[in-house]
Amino acid sequence: MEFKLTATENGTRARAGILSTGHGQIETPIFMPVGTAGSVKGIHARDLKNDIKAQIILGNTYHLYLRPGTSVIETAGGLHKFNRWDGPILTDSGGYQVFSLGDIRKLSDEGARFQSHIDGSYHLFSPEKVIDIQRSIGADIMMAFDECTPGDADFDYAKKSLELTQRWLQRCFEQFEKTEPKYGYSQSLFPIVQGNTYPELRKQAAIHVKNFEADGYAIGGLSVGEPEEVMYEMTEVVNAELPENKPRYLMGVGTPVNILESIDRGVDMFDCVMPTRNGRNGMLFTSKGVINIRNKKWENDHSPIDEAENSFVDLYSKAYLRHLIISNEMLGAQIASQHNLAFYLWLVKTARQKITEGSFKSWKTNMVQQLKTRL
Amino acid sequence: MEFKLTATENGTRARAGILSTGHGQIETPIFMPVGTAGSVKGIHARDLKNDIKAQIILGNTYHLYLRPGTSVIETAGGLHKFNRWDGPILTDSGGYQVFSLGDIRKLSDEGARFQSHIDGSYHLFSPEKVIDIQRSIGADIMMAFDECTPGDADFDYAKKSLELTQRWLQRCFEQFEKTEPKYGYSQSLFPIVQGNTYPELRKQAAIHVKNFEADGYAIGGLSVGEPEEVMYEMTEVVNAELPENKPRYLMGVGTPVNILESIDRGVDMFDCVMPTRNGRNGMLFTSKGVINIRNKKWENDHSPIDEAENSFVDLYSKAYLRHLIISNEMLGAQIASQHNLAFYLWLVKTARQKITEGSFKSWKTNMVQQLKTRL
Ligand SMILES: [Zn+2]
Ligand SMILES: [Zn+2]
Repeated sequence: MEFKLTATENGTRARAGILSTGHGQIETPIFMPVGTAGSVKGIHARDLKNDIKAQIILGNTYHLYLRPGTSVIETAGGLHKFNRWDGPILTDSGGYQVFSLGDIRKLSDEGARFQSHIDGSYHLFSPEKVIDIQRSIGADIMMAFDECTPGDADFDYAKKSLELTQRWLQRCFEQFEKTEPKYGYSQSLFPIVQGNTYPELRKQAAIHVKNFEADGYAIGGLSVGEPEEVMYEMTEVVNAELPENKPRYLMGVGTPVNILESIDRGVDMFDCVMPTRNGRNGMLFTSKGVINIRNKKWENDHSPIDEAENSFVDLYSKAYLRHLIISNEMLGAQIASQHNLAFYLWLVKTARQKITEGSFKSWKTNMVQQLKTRL
Repeated sequence: MEFKLTATENGTRARAGILSTGHGQIETPIFMPVGTAGSVKGIHARDLKNDIKAQIILGNTYHLYLRPGTSVIETAGGLHKFNRWDGPILTDSGGYQVFSLGDIRKLSDEGARFQSHIDGSYHLFSPEKVIDIQRSIGADIMMAFDECTPGDADFDYAKKSLELTQRWLQRCFEQFEKTEPKYGYSQSLFPIVQGNTYPELRKQAAIHVKNFEADGYAIGGLSVGEPEEVMYEMTEVVNAELPENKPRYLMGVGTPVNILESIDRGVDMFDCVMPTRNGRNGMLFTSKGVINIRNKKWENDHSPIDEAENSFVDLYSKAYLRHLIISNEMLGAQIASQHNLAFYLWLVKTARQKITEGSFKSWKTNMVQQLKTRL
């Protein structure tokens, strides 16, 4: 995996780059649609590529491990063959999901024991196991197994947790070195910087991960309830340490504004369920602001969802989409999800173009105001 | 509206024809996907046209009247503008839905009073009202308001009910003559032949509707639980009376086998929720037979859903579709629905081609056997 910076801009840490993978190039900054169980909810692989213009998607190790299981994915020839998405795939490590299970998981140095949310069966995720699973899935980018602390963890807990994450990272890389890709293309392993909201822990964590000379680095454990300003501050602290010549991935972030602010702070990669999940509930993101399509005000608005037409679904009318969402018609969730994803991809593509032209900073300032508007 | 028979075949009553509407031509025999609330569940209008190759879709007067309501549809400029389907649309009369409401509807000569299944509000459907609603929707083909008797109705009830349907038909045509299309293209009104499973009533009903010299005729009240042989017999009795030079629509039918057997008996038009509803539950129709995709046997079958490739979704694998359906992923319902609809449209298109070539009868005999196979 190779990363090439193609443009930077004075007065911002924003960068444009190209990340080359075994399944093609990714132009950064980039947003990665989330395909939890292998599919991006409500979206055909064909539309993901040709209409939304996604360049890389995310899969969830925890979900795919439980169902359909690694054996099915292996007989398919990897996740790309299974879900018919032939672009790059990144898988998370399952850490975040497992730690969200609360009472039904138990943590030790060995790893995390947990019960399946599907059938209650018992499982262990260890650093070694999680690398093996991601080898079976065949992700182009695999993530290290980490502990994701609760947003309100105190310093001592956050410090101990970070130490555990660091021991696990060592084991992840050992297992990574000991194993081979299964499907003939190379896989990369990204460490995750933890440290909760404590700048000194974040800084120490960022310095620690650098030692592994990875193909890229992630910032985890943010956007879990802390104020946005704290998230931006942590991102700044971490990015000040991470090498300039490697991609940086801010996990699970976020709103369109969060994404622009984080690009400004030097982040290259993003993922979030927001465009699909909020879309299913009738929330639309546009360059003019946010639309709650359930609102009565759209009942007789027969203008297109979005004049920008980033997706063919933008030609459906607001009134029709409102009707579909209120009537719980599947097509409503499909249209809103597809619109939102196409908008997110348009947003990062335009940010990239502005960086290349040297006008990102001023464009961002205006765009952030518009994005905050409630239509 | 014009209907032209283009081919018939010796030894079968099957016919090929072309029905011309204000929204283009329909090649018969044809299957009409059901768009209850305006949208065919899970299917983009674009895919309906270009991938499934639907030529006409159905909307439900009852559902559209309750939500979004005729005023929203009128300000949109009719249903075609609202749902972005620019081909022909047929609307049912709401009779079937209202009579399915059971306890919450009350019948009189005036019409049917009922309570909305959405908010409990009270409404009256009369022949006049139902014509007015269909004028507002802007259906190319409107259906007369009728009483649909329960499958087990005795002769006296069926006879009385038929007399009511006949009085209502007169009022439907009076209202039809008194009103005008709202959107600049012509609309047709099809009578519905009732008479339960009593051949003499069906025959009398068929003779009665002919007097109206309508653009086409429908056979209603079948496929409601009676044995398939009875349904075929009623269809034969009715089609023996209906004029040869007008299209015949068998409402709510049915399985692929039902459709071929009914084409053989001279039916030209069909609709059914089966391809989408059964699809959502994991039942796939193919030319080789029926697949229950939830079955464990498909868990590691990575071959395409259907080698026939009537739709782009057919390239997804059986194992992947099984995984999606079992995981309740929306995309599973979308793929199965789109596959089934594309298969139904392939089936009627192929039937038409065989009629034109004079080989329908022998093709049908073989195909019916294959369609009954459980894969
Ligand atoms: Zn998120
Ligand atoms: Zn049916």
